[in-house]
Amino acid sequence: MSAKGAGTVYIVGAGPGAHDLITLRGLAVLRTADIVFYDALINPRILEEARPGAEQVFVGKRCGHHHTEEQQICGMLVEKAREGKTVVRLKGGDPMIYGRGGEEALACAEARVPFEIVPGICSALGAASYAGIPLTHRGTASSVAFVTAHSAGSADSPDTSWQRLAKAVDTLVIFMGGAWVDAIAASLVRAGLAPDTPVAVVSHATAGDQQTLLGSLATIAARVADAGLPNPMLIVVGEVARLSETLNWFERGSCALLPAAAVASSAGVRGGRHG
Amino acid sequence: MSAKGAGTVYIVGAGPGAHDLITLRGLAVLRTADIVFYDALINPRILEEARPGAEQVFVGKRCGHHHTEEQQICGMLVEKAREGKTVVRLKGGDPMIYGRGGEEALACAEARVPFEIVPGICSALGAASYAGIPLTHRGTASSVAFVTAHSAGSADSPDTSWQRLAKAVDTLVIFMGGAWVDAIAASLVRAGLAPDTPVAVVSHATAGDQQTLLGSLATIAARVADAGLPNPMLIVVGEVARLSETLNWFERGSCALLPAAAVASSAGVRGGRHG
Repeated sequence: MSAKGAGTVYIVGAGPGAHDLITLRGLAVLRTADIVFYDALINPRILEEARPGAEQVFVGKRCGHHHTEEQQICGMLVEKAREGKTVVRLKGGDPMIYGRGGEEALACAEARVPFEIVPGICSALGAASYAGIPLTHRGTASSVAFVTAHSAGSADSPDTSWQRLAKAVDTLVIFMGGAWVDAIAASLVRAGLAPDTPVAVVSHATAGDQQTLLGSLATIAARVADAGLPNPMLIVVGEVARLSETLNWFERGSCALLPAAAVASSAGVRGGRHG
Repeated sequence: MSAKGAGTVYIVGAGPGAHDLITLRGLAVLRTADIVFYDALINPRILEEARPGAEQVFVGKRCGHHHTEEQQICGMLVEKAREGKTVVRLKGGDPMIYGRGGEEALACAEARVPFEIVPGICSALGAASYAGIPLTHRGTASSVAFVTAHSAGSADSPDTSWQRLAKAVDTLVIFMGGAWVDAIAASLVRAGLAPDTPVAVVSHATAGDQQTLLGSLATIAARVADAGLPNPMLIVVGEVARLSETLNWFERGSCALLPAAAVASSAGVRGGRHG
């Protein structure tokens, strides 16, 4: 009962930035596409893998889509599939974490257009590996939450959600919070976290210009401002952020450049102060 | 100042199960390995990608490593790298989410052995895409937490953490909880979640024998028991679980087999009942 002769829509996570962090499955379906709808922040080297002659349509906006734009994108995916085309919707990160893949898949299901969803490395996982921040770590963190500044705050009771989050998990990863580092850090301190709670801010995770700044809830906003760190940024709050000092192999080029003091202090990650 | 002539240790996430959900980077470094230390649950087709002659060492246990075993693994990684070998440590899912990649990277850093960490699709992201459960979804869920049954419970106050978690995030993903579905569901109801809160349990996410069961906190444990669902399982709690009924393209083979009722109800995901 699928739409007669319809092509398939592949909703594909392209990964966090580096061209080689897409999955084999993602690359394979990209190479079959007749048309590719892609977001901002997709590495151009990934788009080059589409077959010559495949149509490429940019549908991205840096700060997320408005509802009407998203509806238009859904409409285009369905329309092209109904023309019999193989459609790839290429999204930064993972389609199912802040990727709006669910909305696009629903549009396909409702139109009886076959679809497949291919996961991608979300920016939190990319930053964890490339900035050396285990999101869980034995004896230090056994739970992690992904939130946005928007999802945690609200106009009438801005600190309620932060209070719940602050005590519920060991590691807190805040997506799309780069413009509000100061307000987020202040909210978390009001919510009961110690001002010296370690924080890492990772800009352009896994890309060649990735930058990580370390600090504490008390210091991180000033450091981000001083450095003029560019968006998109990911904010990681919790003891594990401290490990980046030792484990950030990517920005350092090699662990050969590790300061001896950093290695020495890594054993005492639960004990020391940072910031 | 790295250990003289030492090889590099690559700590690589192999992804959740399907052989083609490893990243291009993960595959590329696997193909350079002199020796591969691999876990249980690694798809054999991925191991076949190692070059002929590469040594393959199984170091897995289904239920996680004990501390001493983990120390032994760290010791072997360092030892082989010091022999000048290119070492790949291949792990299911992602190294930095319940993967103990942080511990192994620290062991390398402390031994002055160069290392790199390659992220992988963790089982939660794999299940989200392959069982059709967006972990965040516009108007329904804007935050998600990853926890283990172990991390949420404790001997003296087993329900305290569940109470915090239940109200802190919209979507809760519980890793390694397959043996305790009943107790977890009961704890979440005592913590204040409605008994009809939707739950999905995904067994063998992204593998050919993936199975997803849908229910509610009140019904899911009996369904999992009746079906004899095999471990490993992932438990997803929250309104988004309901979307799997419409979006589970993988187990269905094609959205062409979607029941019309499921599609019709998908628009009202926030309204209806499910259980």
